[in-house]
Amino acid sequence: MEIWFSEKHTDNLALHYRIKETLFRKKTPYQELAILDTCEFGRTLVLDGVVQTTVRDEFIYHEMLVHPAMALHPSPQRILVVGGGDGGTIREIVKYPGLEKVTLAELDEEVIAASRHFLPELSCAFDHPKVEISIGDGVEYIKDKENTFDIIFIDSPDPIGPASGLFSAAFYADIRKALKPEGIMVAQTESPFLHAELIRQVHAVLRKESFSPRLYLAYIPTYQHGMWSFTMALKEPGSLKPEPGWTPPGTRYYNKDIHRGAFSLPSFVAEIVAP
Amino acid sequence: MEIWFSEKHTDNLALHYRIKETLFRKKTPYQELAILDTCEFGRTLVLDGVVQTTVRDEFIYHEMLVHPAMALHPSPQRILVVGGGDGGTIREIVKYPGLEKVTLAELDEEVIAASRHFLPELSCAFDHPKVEISIGDGVEYIKDKENTFDIIFIDSPDPIGPASGLFSAAFYADIRKALKPEGIMVAQTESPFLHAELIRQVHAVLRKESFSPRLYLAYIPTYQHGMWSFTMALKEPGSLKPEPGWTPPGTRYYNKDIHRGAFSLPSFVAEIVAP
Repeated sequence: MEIWFSEKHTDNLALHYRIKETLFRKKTPYQELAILDTCEFGRTLVLDGVVQTTVRDEFIYHEMLVHPAMALHPSPQRILVVGGGDGGTIREIVKYPGLEKVTLAELDEEVIAASRHFLPELSCAFDHPKVEISIGDGVEYIKDKENTFDIIFIDSPDPIGPASGLFSAAFYADIRKALKPEGIMVAQTESPFLHAELIRQVHAVLRKESFSPRLYLAYIPTYQHGMWSFTMALKEPGSLKPEPGWTPPGTRYYNKDIHRGAFSLPSFVAEIVAP
Repeated sequence: MEIWFSEKHTDNLALHYRIKETLFRKKTPYQELAILDTCEFGRTLVLDGVVQTTVRDEFIYHEMLVHPAMALHPSPQRILVVGGGDGGTIREIVKYPGLEKVTLAELDEEVIAASRHFLPELSCAFDHPKVEISIGDGVEYIKDKENTFDIIFIDSPDPIGPASGLFSAAFYADIRKALKPEGIMVAQTESPFLHAELIRQVHAVLRKESFSPRLYLAYIPTYQHGMWSFTMALKEPGSLKPEPGWTPPGTRYYNKDIHRGAFSLPSFVAEIVAP
């Protein structure tokens, strides 16, 4: 007998995953949370029917969210992750010995609990001594912070439902305030094929807040249309090239070649973010 | 009423396209040929159940097959395309005014006929005065050619059924012979996620035939896992950087930034092709 999970990418396109088992399903106060064991990508976190991460390809998303900014900041010590309840982003950050503290501001503690239980490959850093977990709305968490963080990562689901505030203008103004002078913000900003308008808006808002945003890309097979975008914004103008001696910690996707390659945009994508 | 076409990417993963209409279906001597009008990607060429190209995203595949080699060859005049019966590759090649002749060696003339009728965006260059069409097996076509072509493009379907000869060792030896001294070969070489062993074999064979193969990548939403690979091999050692003054003809994906970015490989992909 074959059981398949269908994820609608749009009204007209769906990715179907054959599954071994439904490991967990729960309606939390915020969303429908499921952990599926898929035949193709292994254990998979699904929120409101949308695949968030799979144990097979999560390394790409988490490495590409984290390491480009870590490579560029001269001394990343104090870091905030908004969202990221599966733990993958934290896991990459604690690889850096210079880190002092990383705070995870996650809205839905059930995501953390499920990840701790079912996704140990991702959640393995939650108990690291430099990790602080703050349950609550990231938008509220950041409001009263000033000159606090070296890097802020927005590791959010799609900008619908509980995550829509993470793509608002006021939020980016608060981020600027919360960053230290050499601070960097990175957000996942969806697919250039499907969400060009969202990317355009985020970049327009960031420019209004005196950032110079830069888009970069990574291949993520389980995300819609495979091409995924991230937006990086330095608080002060600076180089997008790592220092010559810099080397990344153990990674499977990210490297110095990819650091440059990821900022090389196809013409139709460059047009989306042209000022 | 909703009608969906299901394309199995593996036994455990399928991409489902909602379709408006089945425009054409025929069993040719070589394969099952279909043209579907899909809601998400427009008209779509399907061979033996596998999506070959769609009018919405074909520009990525065809530009990235053609332009990197055109950018590197000092004077591409005489070109061979093996496969490519939809016409998209030819369309990109005839954009270059220095071209003398391009030959399309396509096995299945029914693909050309269907493309002429249903995919005018792709087939628009078939009647160009510099285009020659040769119906037959590309492997046979190339056997008696010597010092003939500046660039050879292998625009093949997956290496199963009629196309399996296009990935054989003998074929690459014949390609070397058929190329002029400054010649370049480019082949589509499938997905690094799913066909790592095939890519490794092609590169090993090319090295044995005294080529120095280089892998490069492009994002293609309708191809398996979204990350697609191409293999370029120069007959004589040479630079992989276009001359400073070189500019591509009108393109929507390819540009000089992407030329460099496409050769930047994620670590797990670089390992596949490490000598």
